[in-house]
Amino acid sequence: MPIINGNQYINRIDNLNASIWYDGKLIDEKVSDHSAFKGVIKSQANLYDLQLKDDLKDTMTYISPTTGERIGTSYMQPKTKDDLVKKRKMIQHWAKTSGGLLGRSPDYMNTVIMAFAASASIIDGKENCYPNNLINFYEKAREEDLSFTHTFISPQVNRSQLYFEESDEPIAAKIVGKNEDGIIIKGARLLATQGGITDEILVFSPGGITDEAHAFAFSIPSNTKGLKFLCRESFSEGESSFNYPLSSRFEEMDSVVVFDNVTVPWERVFFYHNREVANYFKSRSAFVPFTLHQVVARQIVKAEFVLGIAQAIVDTINIGEYQHVQEKISEIIVSVETMKALIIKAETNAELDEFGLMRPEPKPLHIAISIFPKIYPRLTEIIQILGSSGMVSIPSEADFQSDIRDDLDHYLQASTKNAYDRVKLFRLAWDLTMSSFGTRQTQYERFFFGNPIKLSSELYYSYERSHLINWIESF
Amino acid sequence: MPIINGNQYINRIDNLNASIWYDGKLIDEKVSDHSAFKGVIKSQANLYDLQLKDDLKDTMTYISPTTGERIGTSYMQPKTKDDLVKKRKMIQHWAKTSGGLLGRSPDYMNTVIMAFAASASIIDGKENCYPNNLINFYEKAREEDLSFTHTFISPQVNRSQLYFEESDEPIAAKIVGKNEDGIIIKGARLLATQGGITDEILVFSPGGITDEAHAFAFSIPSNTKGLKFLCRESFSEGESSFNYPLSSRFEEMDSVVVFDNVTVPWERVFFYHNREVANYFKSRSAFVPFTLHQVVARQIVKAEFVLGIAQAIVDTINIGEYQHVQEKISEIIVSVETMKALIIKAETNAELDEFGLMRPEPKPLHIAISIFPKIYPRLTEIIQILGSSGMVSIPSEADFQSDIRDDLDHYLQASTKNAYDRVKLFRLAWDLTMSSFGTRQTQYERFFFGNPIKLSSELYYSYERSHLINWIESF
Amino acid sequence: MPIINGNQYINRIDNLNASIWYDGKLIDEKVSDHSAFKGVIKSQANLYDLQLKDDLKDTMTYISPTTGERIGTSYMQPKTKDDLVKKRKMIQHWAKTSGGLLGRSPDYMNTVIMAFAASASIIDGKENCYPNNLINFYEKAREEDLSFTHTFISPQVNRSQLYFEESDEPIAAKIVGKNEDGIIIKGARLLATQGGITDEILVFSPGGITDEAHAFAFSIPSNTKGLKFLCRESFSEGESSFNYPLSSRFEEMDSVVVFDNVTVPWERVFFYHNREVANYFKSRSAFVPFTLHQVVARQIVKAEFVLGIAQAIVDTINIGEYQHVQEKISEIIVSVETMKALIIKAETNAELDEFGLMRPEPKPLHIAISIFPKIYPRLTEIIQILGSSGMVSIPSEADFQSDIRDDLDHYLQASTKNAYDRVKLFRLAWDLTMSSFGTRQTQYERFFFGNPIKLSSELYYSYERSHLINWIESF
Amino acid sequence: MPIINGNQYINRIDNLNASIWYDGKLIDEKVSDHSAFKGVIKSQANLYDLQLKDDLKDTMTYISPTTGERIGTSYMQPKTKDDLVKKRKMIQHWAKTSGGLLGRSPDYMNTVIMAFAASASIIDGKENCYPNNLINFYEKAREEDLSFTHTFISPQVNRSQLYFEESDEPIAAKIVGKNEDGIIIKGARLLATQGGITDEILVFSPGGITDEAHAFAFSIPSNTKGLKFLCRESFSEGESSFNYPLSSRFEEMDSVVVFDNVTVPWERVFFYHNREVANYFKSRSAFVPFTLHQVVARQIVKAEFVLGIAQAIVDTINIGEYQHVQEKISEIIVSVETMKALIIKAETNAELDEFGLMRPEPKPLHIAISIFPKIYPRLTEIIQILGSSGMVSIPSEADFQSDIRDDLDHYLQASTKNAYDRVKLFRLAWDLTMSSFGTRQTQYERFFFGNPIKLSSELYYSYERSHLINWIESF
Repeated sequence: MPIINGNQYINRIDNLNASIWYDGKLIDEKVSDHSAFKGVIKSQANLYDLQLKDDLKDTMTYISPTTGERIGTSYMQPKTKDDLVKKRKMIQHWAKTSGGLLGRSPDYMNTVIMAFAASASIIDGKENCYPNNLINFYEKAREEDLSFTHTFISPQVNRSQLYFEESDEPIAAKIVGKNEDGIIIKGARLLATQGGITDEILVFSPGGITDEAHAFAFSIPSNTKGLKFLCRESFSEGESSFNYPLSSRFEEMDSVVVFDNVTVPWERVFFYHNREVANYFKSRSAFVPFTLHQVVARQIVKAEFVLGIAQAIVDTINIGEYQHVQEKISEIIVSVETMKALIIKAETNAELDEFGLMRPEPKPLHIAISIFPKIYPRLTEIIQILGSSGMVSIPSEADFQSDIRDDLDHYLQASTKNAYDRVKLFRLAWDLTMSSFGTRQTQYERFFFGNPIKLSSELYYSYERSHLINWIESF
Repeated sequence: MPIINGNQYINRIDNLNASIWYDGKLIDEKVSDHSAFKGVIKSQANLYDLQLKDDLKDTMTYISPTTGERIGTSYMQPKTKDDLVKKRKMIQHWAKTSGGLLGRSPDYMNTVIMAFAASASIIDGKENCYPNNLINFYEKAREEDLSFTHTFISPQVNRSQLYFEESDEPIAAKIVGKNEDGIIIKGARLLATQGGITDEILVFSPGGITDEAHAFAFSIPSNTKGLKFLCRESFSEGESSFNYPLSSRFEEMDSVVVFDNVTVPWERVFFYHNREVANYFKSRSAFVPFTLHQVVARQIVKAEFVLGIAQAIVDTINIGEYQHVQEKISEIIVSVETMKALIIKAETNAELDEFGLMRPEPKPLHIAISIFPKIYPRLTEIIQILGSSGMVSIPSEADFQSDIRDDLDHYLQASTKNAYDRVKLFRLAWDLTMSSFGTRQTQYERFFFGNPIKLSSELYYSYERSHLINWIESF
Repeated sequence: MPIINGNQYINRIDNLNASIWYDGKLIDEKVSDHSAFKGVIKSQANLYDLQLKDDLKDTMTYISPTTGERIGTSYMQPKTKDDLVKKRKMIQHWAKTSGGLLGRSPDYMNTVIMAFAASASIIDGKENCYPNNLINFYEKAREEDLSFTHTFISPQVNRSQLYFEESDEPIAAKIVGKNEDGIIIKGARLLATQGGITDEILVFSPGGITDEAHAFAFSIPSNTKGLKFLCRESFSEGESSFNYPLSSRFEEMDSVVVFDNVTVPWERVFFYHNREVANYFKSRSAFVPFTLHQVVARQIVKAEFVLGIAQAIVDTINIGEYQHVQEKISEIIVSVETMKALIIKAETNAELDEFGLMRPEPKPLHIAISIFPKIYPRLTEIIQILGSSGMVSIPSEADFQSDIRDDLDHYLQASTKNAYDRVKLFRLAWDLTMSSFGTRQTQYERFFFGNPIKLSSELYYSYERSHLINWIESF
Repeated sequence: MPIINGNQYINRIDNLNASIWYDGKLIDEKVSDHSAFKGVIKSQANLYDLQLKDDLKDTMTYISPTTGERIGTSYMQPKTKDDLVKKRKMIQHWAKTSGGLLGRSPDYMNTVIMAFAASASIIDGKENCYPNNLINFYEKAREEDLSFTHTFISPQVNRSQLYFEESDEPIAAKIVGKNEDGIIIKGARLLATQGGITDEILVFSPGGITDEAHAFAFSIPSNTKGLKFLCRESFSEGESSFNYPLSSRFEEMDSVVVFDNVTVPWERVFFYHNREVANYFKSRSAFVPFTLHQVVARQIVKAEFVLGIAQAIVDTINIGEYQHVQEKISEIIVSVETMKALIIKAETNAELDEFGLMRPEPKPLHIAISIFPKIYPRLTEIIQILGSSGMVSIPSEADFQSDIRDDLDHYLQASTKNAYDRVKLFRLAWDLTMSSFGTRQTQYERFFFGNPIKLSSELYYSYERSHLINWIESF
């Protein structure tokens, strides 16, 4: 089964019937009918349908090297610079349907699994490592167009530098046993975005592991026995696309994943009980440059989405002549162009790596994901400042269908828009930056690659600059 | 009838039966039972009850000069520095019950009407001016403990510098006629916070008026014929004080006020058809210094509320040892102390003004309201940064009452708090800074005194600094 | 000998004949004639003369409790709030003569020695402590109007957290012996501002001492045998007050102080070989609040000086109508007023302390010195931005006395000033913010109370906020 | 005469004997011997010598299309992307010799004259326009390796929006007559960097011209009769490369240029008395993209120079372990990489323009020069913060040659450097950021392309974003 369409995706997810807990209840209906999930599932189905459109097919898919069938470009292992550009275009096509708000559209994790599999050779022959499992699983995922969630973070019990978990009952998920069927995992992981509504969940050690029990990498179906997804409150507040143009469609949900003595079958174990490998696999693999390439491509679309909305607000209330407005729009333009320049540099300077992949230059991508956590909150702030009181003058769709429609039409009209369209635009701006959905988006971008302070520190240590020091010495 | 209690307030508002439109419907039940209003009405009732508490009575009330009965301190005309300090304490007692989140607790408008009435002499003998109406109305309000909303802003049709309304039908509310009963008003005004749930609505020209029709000042009951309040969507998403500790109690609502040929009775007209007076009354009166004093007193409580929550987060996840965390908390401390210093300077340098009021020094209060629009959004950002992923790991009250309670208790426990209390704290932080309610609070503080750029400009023109120029010349 | 005049100060310093090394040479002429020192010595002499002016006498001096003679207010131990206000006025009178640029005008160290002496009781009876030496010395200094430099910082060999000096030869000054004459000091200290041109040098341990050899406090004359001052390059580039209106008069010089086996006579030892006392004396004494009060009083004058210059530039080239200019001037106004509010709060909330001093509230002063290191560099940046190309169009005094005077007069004329006065103003702005002197001023304010990061950390630990946490808990 | 060497350049400039006024005197010695100019002339001579070095020749030069001789790459009209890359490399080779501090190394103006000449066709056939003069002059300049200064700015008399010069005597340079020899210019222009020490001065209207008299473009030798250069004070304070490693070599000088009835010969007039052409020539020509490309290439070298120095300071005093230090270095890295990405994008997306030039994409270059004026001052601030007290502990070369050398060696030693090398490094950092030379560099970058506010505004108007608005509309 090669690329799937939207209905296939929906059916597969509904049939999984994963254990998803929401607001005190285990979901027992079709998850695609549940108010907290129907929006995002439909939006995601839409993405799969795009793969089949005639005019996009060449960008969105490529021919499987094993089956000769059309499969998703997000699974492609790029070998040339043109491949990289095609991959970016594919990512941005999908991103445009959501204004870049679907942080976990399938291309994200597909890229991850692709990069891991391409790097399988680095665990070849190591203790408790199964590189072939990884490769086989990648091929399966690619050919079946599987979707994924994953979880990196351990629970936030205590963030002190000197904290080591001492609980008898595991808190952070760990290996508590193994048998002929597989390894047994107990404990929890945060925060699985789209947890429960993807085919699979990929779990691997984030590095910095100090004991064997926390060293592992595997993927299992979302309906594996013992696996539970505990959701936060949904930020989708209703189905009206006038009232909630974004949250009604792109709320992805985050959940705590509980492993209640989950057995991971051996063929799905990529490695385990190997602390050394767990600590270097992610950083030595092709994971970082390709994942960043996907993320940055999406963030560019998001920044452009903000620019479009900001300018629409400016035009609507006719404030473009003000210098401070021009400065703020220019600030967004600078952000958009900077992100674009960084990805172009990464592609222009891409080189074949040890795994035969055309690897984008990592430096500019590191810069991009270091600055976006500061850029994005500022962009949303600009929207709020430009929108001003309009951001809270937001009557609902029902108001426009009631007896006060005439009043609204008259008193909320704008320079270049009627009241209905103007409120629609402002509700869009509000949902992007001020609704619970919008602020979660901001928080998501702020922490996407971890603590900004840590990002600075990594940049400090990784950036090659000895030639500059030598230059200064000789100056 | 002197100071009222909470029930009296609730009954009065329910009996008003003002025309409030919400989500396409005219509210026809008791407004204090309506989901969008019950929280704030109850919180406000609570404020009135505080006036009667034995240990607070001396601060919250004073003896009426006309009736000898206890009346609200917020109506007091301060004659001494001690009066000013008492007024500040009163304001802050009320503010503490809501963390400073009730921007329109009754003391705000009570202060406004007090200041206007004290300044009535400046319109004495001017054309179409009724200073005695103003004084009499102030006394009535004071003795009956009336509550107010008001509206300053005209609809945001077009913000261009050169825009003049040319519609045949008035958009911005204006005088369209007069007769023996009073003047007749047609058009709209934005944004009446608590519109419809106060006894009265005070309406006056904001200055910058270019024609007589827009020059007026009056107050009318909220249930005056032809008056309609068109609400935005409510940001109170439910009644659970675990889930929504703030929005369930302090969501004040904003509304567009429509004057559909409303007759303002003559005894309630303070002035009309006098452009000159309309343009100077606000600035020459005691309005600004006393209103700012109220606002800054409340903002201090709000900043302290943020500081308390921020520190609670730091303690809960044990991150106080990190330098960048210390820097962020210090930044909040600096904000709190700066605001406090500014109000203390205003009180220390207060002087008797031409109306016999002990007027706080305006300069430091102007500074305070110039900086708070920048300070407050930053404070909320700090909360979000410190809270990190905890800000989106927020299961609901129902989750804690379900079968997954054990999982939550185990996996969401914190260093110094159990899971339930930890989630409660993080939901508080989330409701303050990330819920729709929280972001509206941020927007409210950002624009409370108008466009920040305009505030800068006013400061530029008003600040006395010729002695400094002379000093430089002679240097 | 009570308060002295300028000539007495100059003669005393010339007669000291301290060992000052400048640009590779030991100064062997009168230091008040030396190009690197004559400006500041003259400016300082000017300060002493002010003490004698009839109209200022009452502010600048008070009556000695021991001799009944007039002595300097900067030595006064404040017992009332009025004393504090008088002290501030005295400080600001002096500061105004230099635009606040003389960071080490005598009142700074006089305040320090006053505060130490007032706190002598806390070392009473401790090992190797001589509180009476301290008290007697303070009285001597006060009655003789002595001037001081001091040094806090150890050499910047290695700023790593784990660095401990392991050199055989001491680098940081320490006690290397003692005999019947006194204790013997060897090593160096950074950076003695005005080193060599004050009567005395006060040396004490900054805290954080880990061995007895570095635990001491004493004062010795600047010409003590073995004491050497090694100067940096002077930032006074010439004597023309047109060319260098500030650096020609207020360049204070910084020097490395070398103690080459200096004997400190016993009567000048305040304590030694007592690590515990060395570590707490500064913080438990009245040092911090009074020193901060002096510093903040001076910084306010400096901020006002910047405001005056900024506005003069704006008026000269007529740019006051621009919104961004108004914003920048407003930003300076906010800074000035904030600093003023903080000192007023400190004075308003002053309380008698354990030593009988009327101690200003420390909190707002801590805030003030935490923010000024960020404020001041920004103020200088604003000057540069407003001044624009005018900051580098600065012909010299000689140019205005030459044949090209007509050209300059014509082509450099300004809207409200002739070319000569305009260039004079811009040279003043340049000397304040862009000359080597000006940038050293910026660096001085940036680091005056140590590393800003450390200041944040101290604020984090010292600020009382448990009541806020309790409030949140009970909310 | 094709490419010249350093001596040829020096001789040519000396022989010009232009009228340069410095500190009240007309320079009558060889200008290359004058203390204010010798440093920069020698540094520039060094650049010319680089053109002749065997290993650089291929980058620094190309073959003249007219003579077949080697001429300077900075004069090359790029036809391919490789040409562009070669041009960038050439620029950066030169820039590296000065850390990017020679803002007006010859490649800057050579690029300008190249771009103008390539665009000559746009004034073909227009009134009072001489495109052939421009082309011929470019060829002459190219083949003779001429050097240039130029001036854009009119005197800063009054920056008000409504100011029009009303003086009888021209202030801003303008055409006051014409005769058979040429046009006659009277008035002044600011600020000619390197004025008087280049072969030629290029003068053209900056746009925004409202009368014919101010509409012109021409180039004349620096020693043309009636031409005077009035210098500001030199910021080169001495010849010691230890004391002043940068200012002794790279101080370029700025001057007011006075045209005292200067006759511009007809063959050097490119256009005159054509307001329309004056207003569009610069913007329609290839001037902007190529000039920006040169500037950005140089700014990158400068940013890298800062990074090298910053890291050298960090290593020297061993502060790399501190998080806030890592953050600051990371901030510089982000700046460097962002600027690099922008130029790479401009080159990657270059296209052949209407003049047959391979024109770099203007957008990213506009972004680069919009952000560098904010980036560079921040970079210098970081240096100052990292350097801390070390930035003012700067004894002179003479100190190190005197009796106190042992003290300096001992007390100023650093973790990884001896005292001499440490002071050398800190003097370098000081000269870059805190000397009068350094702050003029900061001011230069801040205002290089004009007022930052105007840059924002231009970006606002020029950036194509209608497709984004359409996207939002259809969302």
